[in-house]
Amino acid sequence: MEKFADRIVKSSKKRRSKIILALDLNPSTSNLLDKGLKLLSQVSQSVCAVKINRHMLLPLGLFGGVERLVDYAHRLGLPAIMDCKLNDIGSTNRVMAEWFFKAGFDALTVSPYVGWEEGLEPVFRFSKEQGKGLLVLTYMSHKGAEQTFERALLAGYGKPKPAYKVFARWALEWKADGAIVGATRPEKIVEVKRILKGEVSIYSPGVGVQGGSLEEAVKSGADYLIVGRSILRAENPGEAAESLRERAWKAAGRRRGAT
Amino acid sequence: MEKFADRIVKSSKKRRSKIILALDLNPSTSNLLDKGLKLLSQVSQSVCAVKINRHMLLPLGLFGGVERLVDYAHRLGLPAIMDCKLNDIGSTNRVMAEWFFKAGFDALTVSPYVGWEEGLEPVFRFSKEQGKGLLVLTYMSHKGAEQTFERALLAGYGKPKPAYKVFARWALEWKADGAIVGATRPEKIVEVKRILKGEVSIYSPGVGVQGGSLEEAVKSGADYLIVGRSILRAENPGEAAESLRERAWKAAGRRRGAT
Repeated sequence: MEKFADRIVKSSKKRRSKIILALDLNPSTSNLLDKGLKLLSQVSQSVCAVKINRHMLLPLGLFGGVERLVDYAHRLGLPAIMDCKLNDIGSTNRVMAEWFFKAGFDALTVSPYVGWEEGLEPVFRFSKEQGKGLLVLTYMSHKGAEQTFERALLAGYGKPKPAYKVFARWALEWKADGAIVGATRPEKIVEVKRILKGEVSIYSPGVGVQGGSLEEAVKSGADYLIVGRSILRAENPGEAAESLRERAWKAAGRRRGAT
Repeated sequence: MEKFADRIVKSSKKRRSKIILALDLNPSTSNLLDKGLKLLSQVSQSVCAVKINRHMLLPLGLFGGVERLVDYAHRLGLPAIMDCKLNDIGSTNRVMAEWFFKAGFDALTVSPYVGWEEGLEPVFRFSKEQGKGLLVLTYMSHKGAEQTFERALLAGYGKPKPAYKVFARWALEWKADGAIVGATRPEKIVEVKRILKGEVSIYSPGVGVQGGSLEEAVKSGADYLIVGRSILRAENPGEAAESLRERAWKAAGRRRGAT
């Protein structure tokens, strides 16, 4: 089976889009499943994948509504990423991965803070067997992330380094399909990009409502932009997604032109 | 509403038990919900609470089977803890907490690795409003945990310290209802206990299948033992739970005698 990293490149090229829809609807939303399906159909020409988080998983259930969202995404030609940020002991991570893959997900997000042995190793092994992708949280988008992703110093590569630099190296060594770095910190995208040597893609959440600039993130090296609220809260989600698609594609063109 | 920390003390005294059942059934289990309900009834006299993880959440759904397990635990007089290890951005953590509390859970586990601002702060605020409890992962039970909980150095209290020592201080400052430290590392339980000054209880997973010694963990300062496979895989889960209850209660008596 083709690698997830290759499948999303194809989806991206086909639609000329670097936008991943984060389908994170509020608990106050009525008809959650219908709303989710409708949003998918509205933006499907402008995004290259969909990311689902616990906003949908908890109220709808994995084998209730979420599996239907994944099926529908697939019928629209979009890979589906589960943003579960796996951070349990290895045997539990493995159980979670098993259920998520059973529901059809193509890739999962994982937290490097549980380490490798009896932590993420069992999930990497299992995911590769299944032809599925894993994206490593490298520097999150919120303020408090500084407290740990930056100020935690990790050993293993010469003198202790800020955690996000070590996580980027791990993503490379573990042959992850992506590293996630918040668009709110474009300077960190630049640094992580250098460490990844073009072998692992950068996924960047935090554009829009969280304050990150789309153009800045792409210029700094983000390969995919994960966007939720700027699309979901727009009066016309289809148009909002299309406008973001165009802006990101143009910005990426300028980056290619510049290098 | 009474604090979660006080409610679990009452449940523990009433049953003379320090054992929390981790209801983590394998994906291969048939009739998962019935099996879960049956196990609860089998061990209800020997445990002081139940902890539910994604083993049940993913296949059954929160408002499918899991809510029924929580209801049943409550009817048996047992508080229910959701082991979700919250580690997302604050707004998402808040949404998750909202759904879990709606399903009836009394407490949640959280990961300190997302930091405070826009990380765990919104969940601590919300949980206190709701009279719910939060347990902070302080040192996990698996091997790979060393890579990060110990070898990550965190600033904030004089010179950078191993992460678990800083997390114990955070648990105290944040007025958490518990700190989770793996029974596989009793020497860390001792250190964390000293930092917590008796104001925050220690919850300890990893006894039995993972290799931790129950007596050693209690002697070192664990207030509650989270046990899954040693009970679930026993030929007679009720007897296994009762035997663990008795051993832990005795060990705690010796600790009280010693101090």
